[in-house]
Amino acid sequence: MRRTAALILIGNEILSGRTRDDNIQFLATNLGELGIPLREIRVIPDVRETIVKTVVELRARYDEVFTTGGIGPTHDDITGPCVAEAFGVPWEFHRPTFDMLQEQFGADFNAARQRMAKLPRGAVPIPNPVSRAPGYSIGNVHVMAGVPRIMRAMFNELAPSLKRGAPVFSRTWYTTSLFEGTIADGLEAIQTQFPDLDIGSYPFHRDDGRRGVALVAKGQDVPDLEKAAQAIHDLIKEKGGVPVEGEPPP
Amino acid sequence: MRRTAALILIGNEILSGRTRDDNIQFLATNLGELGIPLREIRVIPDVRETIVKTVVELRARYDEVFTTGGIGPTHDDITGPCVAEAFGVPWEFHRPTFDMLQEQFGADFNAARQRMAKLPRGAVPIPNPVSRAPGYSIGNVHVMAGVPRIMRAMFNELAPSLKRGAPVFSRTWYTTSLFEGTIADGLEAIQTQFPDLDIGSYPFHRDDGRRGVALVAKGQDVPDLEKAAQAIHDLIKEKGGVPVEGEPPP
Repeated sequence: MRRTAALILIGNEILSGRTRDDNIQFLATNLGELGIPLREIRVIPDVRETIVKTVVELRARYDEVFTTGGIGPTHDDITGPCVAEAFGVPWEFHRPTFDMLQEQFGADFNAARQRMAKLPRGAVPIPNPVSRAPGYSIGNVHVMAGVPRIMRAMFNELAPSLKRGAPVFSRTWYTTSLFEGTIADGLEAIQTQFPDLDIGSYPFHRDDGRRGVALVAKGQDVPDLEKAAQAIHDLIKEKGGVPVEGEPPP
Repeated sequence: MRRTAALILIGNEILSGRTRDDNIQFLATNLGELGIPLREIRVIPDVRETIVKTVVELRARYDEVFTTGGIGPTHDDITGPCVAEAFGVPWEFHRPTFDMLQEQFGADFNAARQRMAKLPRGAVPIPNPVSRAPGYSIGNVHVMAGVPRIMRAMFNELAPSLKRGAPVFSRTWYTTSLFEGTIADGLEAIQTQFPDLDIGSYPFHRDDGRRGVALVAKGQDVPDLEKAAQAIHDLIKEKGGVPVEGEPPP
């Protein structure tokens, strides 16, 4: 079964260049392994209308939507009320979360921290083993923290409950002795022969001067994948290159 | 003058987790310095309708749109014909580019490589000092390679011709002695006092256990920015923390 996912990164820090993204590759890899491959990623600012519109649009288009960022205690953490608005439900105190955080913070459980106990009505918390304030799932939308350590912990709590699709397998050959343009025509012929696979060509250039191209076949049909991988191997040899299995070294 | 930009990363490799993005932060930072801050990023697959639709939508919404990926010689490099379709113009050989690449490749200038000499009609090439095959600008859309070294070289060629906006300045204080929830209310009051600035709060957690929060004020009005930075400094002290200027160490 084909299942699809989208990811929304909410917050200004990646758009401004202040922070380098550290969540995309983790989620892309893990969702691929669950058979729910990412089909689209959006990075959007902390702007109410943008968040609401993006959640509404993507949750209609993909099986699962994951968001990161904007669920902390500060004024720029507006993901919660926006997701509530996208679902047309109130954003309100979630009693078990309120009680848990009250116990954690004691006298320091101020108004700002109490915001973290508010969820869209009907949301199911995603436990946060790092700093306690939870994420949550509502419908097909899964709201997680932006801090990578916390996001990963939340995702690991959430993953067992996600409905898996057919896993996507891949086979890769690379060569440092040929250029992309030399093998392009042969590669297109392989793609034509196996229309249900994704055949990709990824040139690489290392700072020390090493360069070459990685050829990747991906798909859910393992016998076809093996045949395509063999054809890619043979193409590299036929063009006078040396095929090496796997990803090129960094 | 307020100018805005969007970025479209085209290709399956980031969505699959195969490749870690290495372009976003470079473009975000450089565009911010040119006063054309990024307001949205999309990562989309090598799918014709998706590319066309995304280019049409974002070029109407932002002053400048940058794309990376999909302009090489292989069958999965479909950005060129898609951008042409988005502008309603033919995708055709660009004579000076054809002649330049023919001279470079000589007898190896095969059909696959000739694809790299095709541009949407009316496009202006962006020189590629690394591997010669150019990017191009058409209207407010700037099409660049996905390989980071080549993308950066193209951007540096393109940047002097971009119309700049008012630069965005920022001031940052961090503290390791307070949590986000302790300063949230005071920070919101500062945001309310300076509505034209973006006041952000970014908690950090290092693998070795160091943690804290960085407070960032950004904007185009320098006197207001100085006042807000002072207020952030004073807030950290008032709450019993030690304010340190700048970004927290990695």
